[in-house]
Amino acid sequence: MTMAPAPRPVRGLPIVRSVAALREWTAAWRGEGARLGMVPTMGALHAGHSALIARARADCGRVVATLFVNPKQFNRADDLERYPRDEGRDVAFLEAAGVDLLFAPPTEEMYPDGFATAVKVSGLTDCLCGVARPGHLTGVATVVTKLLLQGAPDSAYFGEKDYQQLLVVQRLARDLDIPVDIVGVPTVREDDGLALSSRNAALDPAQRAVAPGLYRVLRAAVARLASGESAEPVLRDGRAALTEAGFDSIDYLELRSGETLAALERATPTARVFAAVWLGGTRLIDNLAVTPAA
Amino acid sequence: MTMAPAPRPVRGLPIVRSVAALREWTAAWRGEGARLGMVPTMGALHAGHSALIARARADCGRVVATLFVNPKQFNRADDLERYPRDEGRDVAFLEAAGVDLLFAPPTEEMYPDGFATAVKVSGLTDCLCGVARPGHLTGVATVVTKLLLQGAPDSAYFGEKDYQQLLVVQRLARDLDIPVDIVGVPTVREDDGLALSSRNAALDPAQRAVAPGLYRVLRAAVARLASGESAEPVLRDGRAALTEAGFDSIDYLELRSGETLAALERATPTARVFAAVWLGGTRLIDNLAVTPAA
Repeated sequence: MTMAPAPRPVRGLPIVRSVAALREWTAAWRGEGARLGMVPTMGALHAGHSALIARARADCGRVVATLFVNPKQFNRADDLERYPRDEGRDVAFLEAAGVDLLFAPPTEEMYPDGFATAVKVSGLTDCLCGVARPGHLTGVATVVTKLLLQGAPDSAYFGEKDYQQLLVVQRLARDLDIPVDIVGVPTVREDDGLALSSRNAALDPAQRAVAPGLYRVLRAAVARLASGESAEPVLRDGRAALTEAGFDSIDYLELRSGETLAALERATPTARVFAAVWLGGTRLIDNLAVTPAA
Repeated sequence: MTMAPAPRPVRGLPIVRSVAALREWTAAWRGEGARLGMVPTMGALHAGHSALIARARADCGRVVATLFVNPKQFNRADDLERYPRDEGRDVAFLEAAGVDLLFAPPTEEMYPDGFATAVKVSGLTDCLCGVARPGHLTGVATVVTKLLLQGAPDSAYFGEKDYQQLLVVQRLARDLDIPVDIVGVPTVREDDGLALSSRNAALDPAQRAVAPGLYRVLRAAVARLASGESAEPVLRDGRAALTEAGFDSIDYLELRSGETLAALERATPTARVFAAVWLGGTRLIDNLAVTPAA
């Protein structure tokens, strides 16, 4: 098998833009017997992505990152337009992180004229961001299904910061019999607790000073829930604390099962607290297990 | 790689019931370099299925048939209950037809507890059987996606009698980047023109005598449309002729593009006439190209 001629940037990370070229690389690696890991991203890379890549590197002989700002998962056109894009920076980042290949398709390669298929996961998408961002999780499920079938990795890596997304991807992979291991990687945080996110770059200094309040409120809620308090007063206090901390509005602050996302009145061993809040035009999400993994 | 211990019926066709066992067989065949064909069926096999298998045999070194009466594609519980089932007969049929393997999973293997994913194809499903049988084509799309990802065939074979289904399957395979060739096989008919269907067995002798009227009406409509007449009077006359012939009701008789299913006012090179009619509790569908393939 010959390799597709791939455009090589200065630093040497091969980049492919078509599914056919991606498959030439992955087929060659499969022929070598290498385990293949995939790290799907929308770019604007940060240390959270580094953790995904490090885990993939630890598990797999070859790691492909993908870079595609998926229009189908943006429920607001202005949000899609504002999403940060700097491929040169992302390529340098991935090169330094030790990725073997970047798949960065144009939109028309992913969604050519006539594209008409959606992957819908019910149940898991009927709450949290599934309600707050209509269509978002179907857009995620559809693009992740495509990426998994395009690259056919042995495992793929997703951050726990987007915990509902992680559950949706695990569900669709199991339900559609995609032979891949979907691996969740713990959230990476700034020193002040703010979960890393590409959206943090949009915060002005005053908003950035408010943002770590989200983690503090989650921690306080988790402490009380872990001690056996019922959810209702804890979450009511948490919402008040978020407003007090300076967040402009709250999409949700809820206690749910970390397996099924069923709403809970009291913590269980798999319970998690989930939050989505706004600072100006920037939406931040985070979540914490009530009982941290050992 | 060791083969899964497969229960072998008297006549010798291996049967697997689990996705894991199916994959052991198909992985071994892929290791031999064999091209793999898949013929998905709901059993109640007839000469239409023989044509699918013959085409698969001609194209592929190995052929796997599947037998699964998919509850998700039945929009009426009574229809699912009435659907004919005789696995012993089907196994003998497939053995005689030269199939190499039968995948016949129980429902809980296909849809285990917690199953929550659907594959939805828009556009193509907004007309014809997509309107007459709500949810049917999403059920088809979901199960076919699963079967294609379970067996990973190089090509899969579908009859043109279910032409809308064929287009939906081609669309989802392309849209989800499933690396498979979806092959349409021409409809097989009785001597009197009735398209073969597992549902024909439910017709009583009087209904069976009426049934070939569907093909006659389609042929008459196609002759007029091919000569340049506009669709409206031709289809109006066709509906009257179906009623006259003894059909109890008509779900649709329509002229549409054979590529996009867009409604047409006049025949084009890819136009087809589509019909669905009822005889008692039995629904029959059929379709014809206005310009037959050379």
